[in-house]
Amino acid sequence: MSLDIPYVRTPGPDGRDITGQVDFSQVPRFAGPGTFAGLPRLSDVGESAAGVIGIPFDSGVTYRPGARFGPEGIRSASHLIRPHHVELDSFPFAKHQVADVGNLAVTPFGIEHAIDAMVSGLTAARERAGKLVILGGDHTVAYPSIKTLFDKHGPISVLHFDAHIDTFGTYFGASTHHGTPFRRAAEEGLLDPEGCMHIGIRGSLYDHQDLSDDRALGFQTVHASEFLTTGLHGIADQMRARLGDRPVYVSVDIDVLDPAFAPGTGTPEPGGLSSRELLFLIRSLAPLNVVGADVVEVAPSYDHANVTSLAAAHVAYEFLSIWGL
Amino acid sequence: MSLDIPYVRTPGPDGRDITGQVDFSQVPRFAGPGTFAGLPRLSDVGESAAGVIGIPFDSGVTYRPGARFGPEGIRSASHLIRPHHVELDSFPFAKHQVADVGNLAVTPFGIEHAIDAMVSGLTAARERAGKLVILGGDHTVAYPSIKTLFDKHGPISVLHFDAHIDTFGTYFGASTHHGTPFRRAAEEGLLDPEGCMHIGIRGSLYDHQDLSDDRALGFQTVHASEFLTTGLHGIADQMRARLGDRPVYVSVDIDVLDPAFAPGTGTPEPGGLSSRELLFLIRSLAPLNVVGADVVEVAPSYDHANVTSLAAAHVAYEFLSIWGL
Amino acid sequence: MSLDIPYVRTPGPDGRDITGQVDFSQVPRFAGPGTFAGLPRLSDVGESAAGVIGIPFDSGVTYRPGARFGPEGIRSASHLIRPHHVELDSFPFAKHQVADVGNLAVTPFGIEHAIDAMVSGLTAARERAGKLVILGGDHTVAYPSIKTLFDKHGPISVLHFDAHIDTFGTYFGASTHHGTPFRRAAEEGLLDPEGCMHIGIRGSLYDHQDLSDDRALGFQTVHASEFLTTGLHGIADQMRARLGDRPVYVSVDIDVLDPAFAPGTGTPEPGGLSSRELLFLIRSLAPLNVVGADVVEVAPSYDHANVTSLAAAHVAYEFLSIWGL
Amino acid sequence: MSLDIPYVRTPGPDGRDITGQVDFSQVPRFAGPGTFAGLPRLSDVGESAAGVIGIPFDSGVTYRPGARFGPEGIRSASHLIRPHHVELDSFPFAKHQVADVGNLAVTPFGIEHAIDAMVSGLTAARERAGKLVILGGDHTVAYPSIKTLFDKHGPISVLHFDAHIDTFGTYFGASTHHGTPFRRAAEEGLLDPEGCMHIGIRGSLYDHQDLSDDRALGFQTVHASEFLTTGLHGIADQMRARLGDRPVYVSVDIDVLDPAFAPGTGTPEPGGLSSRELLFLIRSLAPLNVVGADVVEVAPSYDHANVTSLAAAHVAYEFLSIWGL
Amino acid sequence: MSLDIPYVRTPGPDGRDITGQVDFSQVPRFAGPGTFAGLPRLSDVGESAAGVIGIPFDSGVTYRPGARFGPEGIRSASHLIRPHHVELDSFPFAKHQVADVGNLAVTPFGIEHAIDAMVSGLTAARERAGKLVILGGDHTVAYPSIKTLFDKHGPISVLHFDAHIDTFGTYFGASTHHGTPFRRAAEEGLLDPEGCMHIGIRGSLYDHQDLSDDRALGFQTVHASEFLTTGLHGIADQMRARLGDRPVYVSVDIDVLDPAFAPGTGTPEPGGLSSRELLFLIRSLAPLNVVGADVVEVAPSYDHANVTSLAAAHVAYEFLSIWGL
Amino acid sequence: MSLDIPYVRTPGPDGRDITGQVDFSQVPRFAGPGTFAGLPRLSDVGESAAGVIGIPFDSGVTYRPGARFGPEGIRSASHLIRPHHVELDSFPFAKHQVADVGNLAVTPFGIEHAIDAMVSGLTAARERAGKLVILGGDHTVAYPSIKTLFDKHGPISVLHFDAHIDTFGTYFGASTHHGTPFRRAAEEGLLDPEGCMHIGIRGSLYDHQDLSDDRALGFQTVHASEFLTTGLHGIADQMRARLGDRPVYVSVDIDVLDPAFAPGTGTPEPGGLSSRELLFLIRSLAPLNVVGADVVEVAPSYDHANVTSLAAAHVAYEFLSIWGL
Repeated sequence: MSLDIPYVRTPGPDGRDITGQVDFSQVPRFAGPGTFAGLPRLSDVGESAAGVIGIPFDSGVTYRPGARFGPEGIRSASHLIRPHHVELDSFPFAKHQVADVGNLAVTPFGIEHAIDAMVSGLTAARERAGKLVILGGDHTVAYPSIKTLFDKHGPISVLHFDAHIDTFGTYFGASTHHGTPFRRAAEEGLLDPEGCMHIGIRGSLYDHQDLSDDRALGFQTVHASEFLTTGLHGIADQMRARLGDRPVYVSVDIDVLDPAFAPGTGTPEPGGLSSRELLFLIRSLAPLNVVGADVVEVAPSYDHANVTSLAAAHVAYEFLSIWGL
Repeated sequence: MSLDIPYVRTPGPDGRDITGQVDFSQVPRFAGPGTFAGLPRLSDVGESAAGVIGIPFDSGVTYRPGARFGPEGIRSASHLIRPHHVELDSFPFAKHQVADVGNLAVTPFGIEHAIDAMVSGLTAARERAGKLVILGGDHTVAYPSIKTLFDKHGPISVLHFDAHIDTFGTYFGASTHHGTPFRRAAEEGLLDPEGCMHIGIRGSLYDHQDLSDDRALGFQTVHASEFLTTGLHGIADQMRARLGDRPVYVSVDIDVLDPAFAPGTGTPEPGGLSSRELLFLIRSLAPLNVVGADVVEVAPSYDHANVTSLAAAHVAYEFLSIWGL
Repeated sequence: MSLDIPYVRTPGPDGRDITGQVDFSQVPRFAGPGTFAGLPRLSDVGESAAGVIGIPFDSGVTYRPGARFGPEGIRSASHLIRPHHVELDSFPFAKHQVADVGNLAVTPFGIEHAIDAMVSGLTAARERAGKLVILGGDHTVAYPSIKTLFDKHGPISVLHFDAHIDTFGTYFGASTHHGTPFRRAAEEGLLDPEGCMHIGIRGSLYDHQDLSDDRALGFQTVHASEFLTTGLHGIADQMRARLGDRPVYVSVDIDVLDPAFAPGTGTPEPGGLSSRELLFLIRSLAPLNVVGADVVEVAPSYDHANVTSLAAAHVAYEFLSIWGL
Repeated sequence: MSLDIPYVRTPGPDGRDITGQVDFSQVPRFAGPGTFAGLPRLSDVGESAAGVIGIPFDSGVTYRPGARFGPEGIRSASHLIRPHHVELDSFPFAKHQVADVGNLAVTPFGIEHAIDAMVSGLTAARERAGKLVILGGDHTVAYPSIKTLFDKHGPISVLHFDAHIDTFGTYFGASTHHGTPFRRAAEEGLLDPEGCMHIGIRGSLYDHQDLSDDRALGFQTVHASEFLTTGLHGIADQMRARLGDRPVYVSVDIDVLDPAFAPGTGTPEPGGLSSRELLFLIRSLAPLNVVGADVVEVAPSYDHANVTSLAAAHVAYEFLSIWGL
Repeated sequence: MSLDIPYVRTPGPDGRDITGQVDFSQVPRFAGPGTFAGLPRLSDVGESAAGVIGIPFDSGVTYRPGARFGPEGIRSASHLIRPHHVELDSFPFAKHQVADVGNLAVTPFGIEHAIDAMVSGLTAARERAGKLVILGGDHTVAYPSIKTLFDKHGPISVLHFDAHIDTFGTYFGASTHHGTPFRRAAEEGLLDPEGCMHIGIRGSLYDHQDLSDDRALGFQTVHASEFLTTGLHGIADQMRARLGDRPVYVSVDIDVLDPAFAPGTGTPEPGGLSSRELLFLIRSLAPLNVVGADVVEVAPSYDHANVTSLAAAHVAYEFLSIWGL
Repeated sequence: MSLDIPYVRTPGPDGRDITGQVDFSQVPRFAGPGTFAGLPRLSDVGESAAGVIGIPFDSGVTYRPGARFGPEGIRSASHLIRPHHVELDSFPFAKHQVADVGNLAVTPFGIEHAIDAMVSGLTAARERAGKLVILGGDHTVAYPSIKTLFDKHGPISVLHFDAHIDTFGTYFGASTHHGTPFRRAAEEGLLDPEGCMHIGIRGSLYDHQDLSDDRALGFQTVHASEFLTTGLHGIADQMRARLGDRPVYVSVDIDVLDPAFAPGTGTPEPGGLSSRELLFLIRSLAPLNVVGADVVEVAPSYDHANVTSLAAAHVAYEFLSIWGL
């Protein structure tokens, strides 16, 4: 019996083998290497076309902390993922090389230092690993992620699933924290003001200005209550119309889900989406130009039976499946 | 640095300042005074136009106890509430004074003694604190609440969100317990038999007579399964049609939600509402004459990550927001 | 005060009394005998027309184990069930004798030995106890259950609620495990290839062949995402059309529910049904010829506040209520 | 395969077979009938020499409720108990008939009515089932238990393991609740004032009078802190010296254990005993005349992984083992 | 029925009434105002001789965050505390005025700013509220606490209960975090190098230098393993010998307890103290000159049934009881 | 910023660098690679002198399953381990190369096949990775582990920490399961009958024969209750006397700990050891000839806040530290 981990290998388009998931006919799903979906590490394959990367940072949270353990929770919940995405008819791990890039190590003390390290780390990661799904960590990570995408794609359309608008202002002296990534990105000109959109917004705000500021920054908003009026299919249409063929960054704060579906998060708001709705909407992005994505704010110490991490793992899998079409 | 708690203050219509929530730009949300939504205590402001009051009583339960810790759980889950209710465009804490009245202290031994104390306490509280949202406690509290409202408003229309009809009969010698508040209220003539309504009823009953008795007491019933046939908007229409401009008491047993949304309760029934549906229906009461409300049967020892308490806190906030229009 | 447990007794059609549930006017719901819904044990009544039986076996699972404690969890969650099913207008425990058959004791070591014991035990149980709802245990139990029904009814139509198709192949040398009961049943000719159907399928698969094999074995599939397109009523229509008046075995893997509704299970998949949808669909089977049923894969060590067990207990009650029409 | 539950049978001294535990060579421990330790129900064997009986009553609690589910939790945690107690060299289930008597059904509304039912039920149970270990329920049950023992044995020595003295006074108008069983018993002359003893007392009190009253009622007290000074063996000596050959009722409030060992209880106090110490002390009672026992205040909704129930189940087993010598 | 909270009042030495705990004969323990032990708020009494104060700050943690919710958890767990400490024969709430000072609001972003606010807040609090027990929050709070005590008392002897020495160095650029408060205090000359002591140290370190540096800073160390050799009484003797009559600050990291006794903490280490040992040692400080204290690192999201918070609440009560002698 | 994981490197005795733990001055402890203690994988370093290896197998359990997730749980709980073991003055990761070998992938279906794979896998692992600490999985793994050690060392002395003797017999047709590894090893002549020992045994047995058989197989037994009589130091002396300089395999079933310290296990027994006692005893093995070790029966789905996994991780660290002397 070999000690080496057996991976599924498929011939790639360029003649080189693609290393897929651990071979689950030889390795029970609970016995694998602990990577996302049993994929190889980036260091095992050298480079990849797409990857997942953890950013275990939660020093930007304003209420319940713990998202620093999000990457560990999401990876643990990803081991039931299989290679064929049925609805999209995608084999994302056989189309091109996909890898688990590991975690970015950033300081828990000092948000600005952490952001610098994220910018540097994400730049390096995108060079070697291709398109990335970031596993947060708190929502702060969206700002450096967009910043590094801007360098390549120019102004970015942000499609933002969240209970909160996250274009709030300075809080306790910090201009960047988990409530402000999109304000800072917008103010620095990184966003395409014709192509940004929030979906799932709900709960109370501070003032009228929160939403008017947000609109001024370029965001169109679909409130969670619109799922009861406009309906899911209408919202999907609005979403595709807004995004068109722009380069889109999709940022999924797991609290866009109702606390029933995502108890393990830091600022839960009742009245949210179901996981079925969220996965449907992401899946319907398949024809669009998604250049990057994150799924953030999973706080395992508040989770139960991994349900929040499960939802997040499947969100990540949707992105990989779109990229594997 | 002062030890005093900084509250947001707004000029009121009569020239006197209104004391709002703790100023969350100075006090992190996890560092406040522990009151509902960081509001001032009634003793801090003397009197108010609206308030929340806890009744930590659960000696009327017939299955899983623990709702005595409901007020503590709901207050703890209310700290993310902000001053602006977007959908209603309401600033409930700036329109008039709102306060946290604290808890009514009633005996855990002896339901009738407890009810007497609740009647007396609620009468006093309504005099000083205005319109009340009661945080239960078990559903027994609805009876004394209606009783004291009847004294002011005459026959009351009850809009009752629950999995159970709560017009059951004497159980183990007790005529009043968490399954009977509306029977007792109806039998004493406190209810308007043309204006009462249950929403969300489901699960098994003892006999045909349960529902026929219930109808005789003046209740119209919307079963949970009707959300799949009549639909949410149709139910909202029925609801407003039934209630008209009568004085309405809205009683929300948190078990109207499915156990996925409200695990922390005493007599859970699968097949219930989502929190999005419940909040939508309550919000649609805005034009009506809601004279009092409760949210009951939150049992934190069965809750997880506060999801049940969060839903209940937002139910309470809806009522305060309606009153702040 | 007698030590005997008081049961509700109703005159049966043949003059013999039917023993119903524990008399909950004398016995608080938390003080009963611990049987399903407080029903008498089979040994107390000798024989019955319908029954529930536990099969605490989970040696066929491929991921999170623990369904061996499913029967204990489901029984514990069933004590709030009352005798009158409102929507069906059924009094299932007064129409004919219903009993709790207890558990089948089968080895945890050796799947084939366990299956032999299940076949033998279920045969004996169906002779004495009539129609059965099996409380799993893992999904392996469906195969012996269908096998014993085939002996009586000939080819069986399987209506299968699940996230997974469970017609997978040999895994680690085992041809029968919780992912294969329907493949084995189909290959042995036990199924009616014109009348089988999956509802709720979602998540990733290994290959195109999974679904084509499945179709070849006689299964029509309703994906979970079709609840968002075809809609619930359309699916109910398809279901009744497919099943017609064939003898139907309904197999409910609790993971057909979204993890929010059923966290306590072994291979959870986000994007699933709500308990309201599931109960609606089962209830709509009332006019059909349901000859047997199971509810499986409840793993209490991953459950919270019994929500998964509650859903499963109500699924079982739906079947008993259909049989009590 | 038979549907009957196989029990181990041993020839008894009078020629009649003794029915022991379920035969765990045929029935996996998780597949048994759900009785305490897999013992037969009293109704299966008619009568017994010793038994366990549940009293699911917790309406006497003053803080965290939930002990009504104690009997269910303790039975669930008892399934690993085997027939041979090593340290005592006792085969308690083969020496004489032991049975699970089931639960006493008493009202949750009205303490005095409940006590009357307990007195009546325990009298009946002791006639048919012999010596009893009561599974609480809250500590209120000790009073009716002692009352029925007094009728047979005269004044009773109470050996009381608890964090609290439970000779407190009337509270919210109730003279009997979970803090007063021994005061009421003493005031009615049911106790032997030369033979009563508390072990494990700790935490704060109201006043000096609490302890002086307690002494006047006949109690000697071993504080939990004395385990650090007198030591375990010295305390065992004191205990045996105090009790001598009197008829002893041993009442074990599970909160005598530290919250680490017994989180699932209503009024936890840090600084308590370990389960090893408690089991040692109970075991050392073997030579004494223990006429009855209880283990109370197990509240499963606050328990984790059944650890509290496990400790309580083993406490009960110690008593049965002593009686089986 | 009055809405005012009834407090026990005792005549003070200066003729003015002392306001004690809520009167628990009128208010059930679960119905009080939510303050520590039901004590009055400082704002209710103006000033006090001793108080508890929360510092909900956890931005200094290096592993599991969440101690920001420590003050809420500890207060919730303190409601069973009664006015008479038996072993010390102390009535701490009747001897002089004790108050709950509330929480210090400090930024979660920026450790140095937070420390400045703590210094300022603790200075103000000690002026108005007297001797303080700080409820953490993470261990960072010890540094500003010692700093403000130094201003009054000169060099401070630190008696430090912890698994970790907390004299580590700069980490990720932060010189002050939860692993360094005593290094920084020592380096600034705030400590008495002849009077500092760690108790309960265990687990692995980085290098020999950790302990030699620590000794150089003035700390004597009692390892957790010495409880098995020197024994508890010997350690108490060493402790009193080291501290003598110096002004002592007692800092209790709750992780000095074994994870069995304190699961709810950020950097747990097996092999720790029991709560009985810890409370004994603190109690034995009664004759010494304790000028301030803290109990820190309680992280409720990792706690179960409040056991960690309960231990912490009792630690705080020991200090108040010593000060009430 | 590099994507490579920075490890601490130390010059080894042979001139080649030893790769130690992840450099925690660059990588926060929650951001590492997920290996045991942040050690390199075996595949990263090629070979090692000592290693940890997971065997996620639990198909041999007779009660609560779930130990298949033990390796994941233990690794997750190991990230606070630092390089210097203070009491032993050992730097285990700098003395020679230590690696995380990963998991052995074995079938969950069929114990004998799984054992064959374990024998083969452990043989391969010991060749490449040196001395091993096995992270279970259930106790079945001890048998193949001893078998492969016998091949190298001849008859093995087993030092066995457990609540149960694990020399039970065939159960449900399986001769090898988690209750029999030592019987099978003894019967095959793999054990040194003069050098085997159980420590911590408690709870009930089937018959006298259990212990007499056990003695005949060569085991000396220290019951848990002897910790209260012989005492810890006396037991350590007995242990060392029994083992002498024989080759010792130390097998630690985590249920040797009391359920308070190890709730997350499959067959918990109250009355067990504390983690402080267990770590002390293992540490005192330093002078002996420990040739292999395991720590088994950690079932994370029953754990809380990782306390069981934490204890197990520290047990493993003790062995590595002994080997690093």
